Parts: sequence; C-alpha cells; structure tokens
Amino acid sequence: MDRDTPETIGALPVARTVAALRRRIDAWRRAGESVVLVPTMGALHAGHLALVAHGRALASRCVASIFVNPSQFAPQEDFSRYPRDEAGDAAKLAGARCDLLYAPDAAQMYPGGFSTTVTVGAVAEGLCGRFRPGHFAGVATVVAKLLLQSGADIACFGEKDYQQLQVIRRVARDLDIPVRIEGVPTVREPDGLALSSRNLYLSPPEREAAPALQRVLAATALDIGRGAEIAQALAAGRAALARAGFARLDYLEACDAETLAPLARADRPGRLLAAAWLGRTRLIDNLPLPPRAA
Amino acid sequence: MDRDTPETIGALPVARTVAALRRRIDAWRRAGESVVLVPTMGALHAGHLALVAHGRALASRCVASIFVNPSQFAPQEDFSRYPRDEAGDAAKLAGARCDLLYAPDAAQMYPGGFSTTVTVGAVAEGLCGRFRPGHFAGVATVVAKLLLQSGADIACFGEKDYQQLQVIRRVARDLDIPVRIEGVPTVREPDGLALSSRNLYLSPPEREAAPALQRVLAATALDIGRGAEIAQALAAGRAALARAGFARLDYLEACDAETLAPLARADRPGRLLAAAWLGRTRLIDNLPLPPRAA
Repeated sequence: MDRDTPETIGALPVARTVAALRRRIDAWRRAGESVVLVPTMGALHAGHLALVAHGRALASRCVASIFVNPSQFAPQEDFSRYPRDEAGDAAKLAGARCDLLYAPDAAQMYPGGFSTTVTVGAVAEGLCGRFRPGHFAGVATVVAKLLLQSGADIACFGEKDYQQLQVIRRVARDLDIPVRIEGVPTVREPDGLALSSRNLYLSPPEREAAPALQRVLAATALDIGRGAEIAQALAAGRAALARAGFARLDYLEACDAETLAPLARADRPGRLLAAAWLGRTRLIDNLPLPPRAA
Repeated sequence: MDRDTPETIGALPVARTVAALRRRIDAWRRAGESVVLVPTMGALHAGHLALVAHGRALASRCVASIFVNPSQFAPQEDFSRYPRDEAGDAAKLAGARCDLLYAPDAAQMYPGGFSTTVTVGAVAEGLCGRFRPGHFAGVATVVAKLLLQSGADIACFGEKDYQQLQVIRRVARDLDIPVRIEGVPTVREPDGLALSSRNLYLSPPEREAAPALQRVLAATALDIGRGAEIAQALAAGRAALARAGFARLDYLEACDAETLAPLARADRPGRLLAAAWLGRTRLIDNLPLPPRAA
C-alpha cells in the first residue's frame, strides 16, 4: 500500500503523512468546504471531544491530530510513559464525527536534517516556562508545523492548557499563519478536577486529593473578586494547596489574561494559574479572575 | 483612503498592509492564477530584476516585497544607512512587469507585542552566522512571515546570498510552509563583481578592487577542481584576497552545498563562500565547486 494513501481505523480515515493529509484536505477545499484542526497528543478524554464538538460547529470538516511530540518534553519528563491508545482514540473520534485522524510518526514530523525552532518571548517565559525549559519552543514549533501542514481555517485548543493557548495565539499572529485560534473551556470531572490525560497517573489517594487544586483556585479567585490584595490571596491559596496534600507547588499566580504578565492589582482581565505536584504527577489548572467588585 | 486599499506608484499597484496584500492575492486565486513572491530590501538592481524575470516564468502573477528588516541587522550594522529608493524601485518593478509591490512598514510587520523568533540550526551557524549574530534568525522570521502573509506558491531568492538561500530552504521545509523556494544565479557586473545594493557604498578605488573577490573565488575553485588540497587552496585564496586589498577577511570556506558543513575533501557537491571587507563595506560572494577531476 502506498504509505501516503489514507488507511482507516474502524470507520475513521487516517493519514500518516503530510502528503496524505494534504491530499484529503485539498479535495475538501475543491468542494468548497472549510476545515478545523484539533491537535492532540492522544489519550483522548471528554475534554478533547469537546474540542471536536466545538470545531464541528465552526467548519464543515474536522481533522484531529495525534502526535506525542518529543520536543516538548524535557529529558527527565514523562515522554516515554505518556499514555498511548490509538485504537481507542480513533473509536472516540469516529463517535464524535471527526472526519480524519492525522497521526504522523516522529520521522514524518522531524526528518533528518530538521533544525528549525519557533520560540516565543514574554508569554512563554513565566509560569510553566520557568519549570519546563524548552517546553513552549517545542509546542510552538510543532503547532506551527501542524497548522501549516493542514492549512486549517480554524484550530481548537483547550483552556486547560491556558499558557499554551496564549503562546499559540502569539505564534499564529506573529508569523501571520492564516488560521483562527479558538480556546475552548475546560471540561471537568463532577468533583471539579480538570480532565487531563495525566490524571491516569494518579493513585487512588492522589485522585481523591486532586480536586483541591480547582477548589483552591476558585476560592482564591473569589477572594480577589471580593477585594482581597492579590499577594495575600495567593499566599493563602499556596498554604491551602500544601494543606491539601500538594507537597510541591511550582506556582500559583495571578496574571494578565492575554500577556500572562504578573498582575499586582485586579484592574484588567486576569487569570489565576497553578501547577502543583501530587507524588510524581504534575497537575495544572486555571480559572478566570472575576471582575473586581467596585 | 482606506489604508488597506492598494495605492499605486506610477503604474505599479502597492499594498501597504497584510490585508491589502491578501485581498489582491485572493482575487487572483479565485481566478485560478498562481503567485510568485520576490522578497527584497529594495535598492533594486539587475539581480533583483532577474529574480522577477525568473519568477514570472514560473507563475502567472509576480509580487515583489520591499522591507528593510531591522531585525536582521545587528546594532552596529548599516540598517540606518541602507539605501532606500521606493519610487525608483517601483519604476524598475513596473518595467519588469511585476504585478504588485508589497511595501509594509515596521509597525505592520512587528506590531506591539510581537515576540516570536524562528531560528535555524547548523546551516545558519557557520560563515556569516559567526560574524552577524542574530542575522539569520531575523531573516528566517521575516521570510516566514512574508511567505505566510502572501501564501505564494513559489518564492525566488538570489544565490548571491547563498547561506541565506539554504537557511530559507531549511525553514520552509522544516515548518512545512507550502511554497517552492527557487534559487536564482548571481548577476554580475562585466568585471565579475556580484551585484549588491551595498556596492553603492564603495569608493572609486574600492570599486576597482572589488572584483578581486570573484576572481579569487574562481581561481580557488579551479585549484580545488584540479585536485589541490582544499586547506591549501583556501590558504592561497586568503593570501590573494589580502594582497588584493581586502584588509579584513571574515571567511573564505569550502562547504557542503546543502548543509554548508565545512568540506575537507571535494567528494560531494560543494560551494566556495567568502565574506571580506573593503574599508567599511562588507562584500560576500560564492561559487559552486566544480566536480573534482578523477
């Protein structure tokens, strides 16, 4: 079989190469259709499927990509143990009426001689950028490639990875990639825990402790909305996370909602963001800061 | 007048904004036309017009851009004195049957908050990359933007800036920009001097000395083609440049024609490249290494 010919997994067509992806999308273009891309690293959950549903409402064709991008993991991070389940993912995407899975391998994305990096300034430097060196350069580079490989009109990303979303908005705008970036609200478990493929790593007691991250964010946002000093509200939030079992806190910060510059006063749209550890698992979450009471 | 509405200079339509550029190009696309882009920094000479002529033979519409890109000049370099002559350039482009001039200003290319950089690895690190820190990141970033702003099918660059051409090939391939990069042979004065906007800086005695750069490159390439050891041929070439009045030599190197890795033996396609100074003016030039005699 020609490696560029789409195969299928169950009902879902799959493209393994840029050429196969473009051939399929070009045919849609000739028929006047619009295309939305949902980039993922697989291990799909209801949060990813919300991206597909959101995308389907905005374009006539929906492509999901699955690529566990090695360049966005630091050497000591969880690249090798990151969960992978292509058959299960394909069934979920078919059920969500996704039209095509794009699942390239690393040799397709980074052939021999590859040596280009897309880096982003201020918005990528704080928060996770301080704790995951190289992470956002890896994200910016692979997302630029996926956007340009697909030529999608629209691409959907979850607000769960809020800094990533702002970094991608910056890259698309700065490089003039002709795409609209859509942020989609975080999907949560009934107890408030943000859905994440990494939740699979949590032991039962860790899973029980995990929703505290969202509860502390919500309480801190409420404090700030009611007029508390941001620095004091953050200090209280950090203490509450430690009490809830998060033995290691990377950050809990209030930031400008677009630039992610630290926010000293709640005088413009803000976002509260946190990254904290339960055992070996690093969880992140974020919430909007409500407009300050007058 | 709407700033996005193309104006004209003489007979040549001009777009000052991305929106105006895309509106014009979208109309061509709807009519089934193909588009070639010729990116320049203006101060056009016959070398640029050869790019336009080459491009016109490959696509039905030709867009030339003029943008003196501040981010590819180091602080002590010649950004402020780089020659600018938009009216003269527009007349030359109209005469060469270019269809559109794209002439954005710096605020259009780098609006507030801009913070993305495209960097390229090995191919950008030697040669001019050692002497002009940040230069190729500036080039890679602005060229990625111009390619994505225009959505051109083909873009033409001169072989005169050979390392730049290989860097741009690398960026387009690595980021999956859907464009074909065309290298166009260097245009020379009758005495062999490669055309360059910077030749305008040369005093009359410097102008008289300048063709030695090409003559030494040709003699060195011939030596290597005849079987001379590369290291010895380069040493002789460096001495000849000093004798010819190039008081300062940045480099004279033999490199792999694609990767620009230093070439110890002429066992694959190679390129001979030089950068040398006459007074305050830095000249560059390059030639292919002929296949080695058996």
